Amino acid sequence: MNYKMILEYDGTSYNGWQKQGNTERTIQGKLEELLKKLTGEDTEVAGSGRTDAGVHALGQVANFRLKEYREPEELLEEMNRYLPQDIRVLELKTASERFHSRLNALRKTYVYRIDRGDKPSVFYRKYRLAYGGPLDVERMKEAADCLLGTHDFKSFCANKRMRKSTVRCIHEIRIEEQQEVLSIYITGNGFLHHMVRIIVGTLLEVGSGEKPAACVQEALDQCDRAAAGQTAPPHGLFLLKVEY
Amino acid sequence: MNYKMILEYDGTSYNGWQKQGNTERTIQGKLEELLKKLTGEDTEVAGSGRTDAGVHALGQVANFRLKEYREPEELLEEMNRYLPQDIRVLELKTASERFHSRLNALRKTYVYRIDRGDKPSVFYRKYRLAYGGPLDVERMKEAADCLLGTHDFKSFCANKRMRKSTVRCIHEIRIEEQQEVLSIYITGNGFLHHMVRIIVGTLLEVGSGEKPAACVQEALDQCDRAAAGQTAPPHGLFLLKVEY
Repeated sequence: MNYKMILEYDGTSYNGWQKQGNTERTIQGKLEELLKKLTGEDTEVAGSGRTDAGVHALGQVANFRLKEYREPEELLEEMNRYLPQDIRVLELKTASERFHSRLNALRKTYVYRIDRGDKPSVFYRKYRLAYGGPLDVERMKEAADCLLGTHDFKSFCANKRMRKSTVRCIHEIRIEEQQEVLSIYITGNGFLHHMVRIIVGTLLEVGSGEKPAACVQEALDQCDRAAAGQTAPPHGLFLLKVEY
Repeated sequence: MNYKMILEYDGTSYNGWQKQGNTERTIQGKLEELLKKLTGEDTEVAGSGRTDAGVHALGQVANFRLKEYREPEELLEEMNRYLPQDIRVLELKTASERFHSRLNALRKTYVYRIDRGDKPSVFYRKYRLAYGGPLDVERMKEAADCLLGTHDFKSFCANKRMRKSTVRCIHEIRIEEQQEVLSIYITGNGFLHHMVRIIVGTLLEVGSGEKPAACVQEALDQCDRAAAGQTAPPHGLFLLKVEY
């Protein structure tokens, strides 16, 4: 039986989603270890995508297969009883045999949160980038518009030896200000390694005036990582939802 | 010169406000250590009251004296530059020589937050008590009403050998529900050791049906710690503001 689950996690103390041998503390590793204990079965928990070390999720989707049927509601409760407090299963359902969380994902939405206060809240220090300096948000929105649609995002990919296609489609970028928090929502059909964080880092350099708004279009054209801005730190980033 | 400051802190990794020798990690200890480094002066940072290990503050007030005058805005910035990320000075001003943060406090307000969801948010696990079971909030409000006004709160004091008066006045208790969060605001002229947490623990026992609403009046009458409920855990509690 194939199971689909929606997960929330605080990535602060993990080395990201993906298992890397047995020694690293990862979300995938924790889930597989627990499922082995609860069901006795070795199963692979496939995520819709990796999240980097320190990146959080409000709606990561993953699937796994079990030989023996387990009642989903019971399994969900049991998992939440034994999972560490920073990982939570929000939903667990049986899925069709063909369902694959990564291969079937149509759209993903991330949100990056920035604390604009001159005295950033201590309670959100692990969940928002503290950025006290001036930012021209209208300029950031203008620059973000160039990214919409289908482009080669090679300049926004951390993996310099990427052999597969670096063409992706961004459906929407929404920049919202609520009191002292600036949230950048990005929806696309898929994302390259560090792509969201490089987009955010570049938009921040445009907003602060370090770079002109036109640099985003130039970066797209040049297909060179050096043409884009810095990689924003991981702790402001949340995988918000995955659509199928 | 006497300085008054307003502080925000995440109490998770501290042994409370009050300094206890040099080995313990406390808020007061961190502040005094930093002020010594920045000014060269040994000064005592007097808080409006102690907060227990794990208790947070959104508006703790403290004062300290320096022999040499320091420009408040500059000192505030310097403090925030070097303080750990979980302590923040929100405001720093000079105060009259006679001002004392504890002795002059007229009213204090605490808030205790409870996450009522069956899947409590991982991001608030250190800032809200997870309490998924049923609660009769109207019953809790009714029970809370008996606590208003001036009473001997001996039953709600953790210190059994308290020699000073245990009479305090509670001005207001407000219980608010917002989505899955239940917030209990308590304002009074002063609070005994663990008083807010024992009140919250008792109200939770009333809400869950373990105890009748009348038990609160009985606890007040009996002046015996055993007559009140359990002490709620520290991590849901915030010192919200201190009025002078």
